[in-house]
Amino acid sequence: MDKVNLAEKFAHIDEAYKPKLVAQYNDNKLILTRARGEFVWHKHDETDDLFLVVSGRLIIQLRDRDVELNPGELFVVPRGVEHCPRADPEAEILVIEPIGTTNTGDAQVSALTAEPERI
Amino acid sequence: MDKVNLAEKFAHIDEAYKPKLVAQYNDNKLILTRARGEFVWHKHDETDDLFLVVSGRLIIQLRDRDVELNPGELFVVPRGVEHCPRADPEAEILVIEPIGTTNTGDAQVSALTAEPERI
Repeated sequence: MDKVNLAEKFAHIDEAYKPKLVAQYNDNKLILTRARGEFVWHKHDETDDLFLVVSGRLIIQLRDRDVELNPGELFVVPRGVEHCPRADPEAEILVIEPIGTTNTGDAQVSALTAEPERI
Repeated sequence: MDKVNLAEKFAHIDEAYKPKLVAQYNDNKLILTRARGEFVWHKHDETDDLFLVVSGRLIIQLRDRDVELNPGELFVVPRGVEHCPRADPEAEILVIEPIGTTNTGDAQVSALTAEPERI
């Protein structure tokens, strides 16, 4: 039950797309990720996906448009909607997903699939 | 399904402790509130309460300690834990709570009790 300083946490995160668990809210995990380059196209049929950009710029590619997120901007990808985050060169992002959600959704064979590590 | 720019939204929020709904994530509401002065002691027996400070400084008073939150810091008040936010002079905060949660929790007779307005 400690507060989380996002910048301090990100100072310990170097590797791209390795999710780090910093807190829980009800049945959800609060994940910090350093996005760098393109992630993978995927969707989550059972849950929305909340993205908040802390630094940098994240493009959430949807099949019909791109959503550009700068620091202090958030976006909720509705359940079932295919999306592919991309950061060029990189972005620090907070993601909220239910516990048990796989980061790569239905693209579970991706090399980017990873369980969050608690930091 | 639009992105939310937190600063732009707050530019339209003047009154203190009048929650504004800016997005939903699964069964949760994303609320922006301009905190000014002290809120009211309360708790939510059924849910955690997520606070993220966007600007200013928020003190989340707990019965045994204060948690000071500056911009880019978040804190999850566990369910059942009494808390009383206080901002001096003010803070812009993002709060995430399940839909149907009353902002003043068990202190429902408070003059501060308010349903969020969508902006």
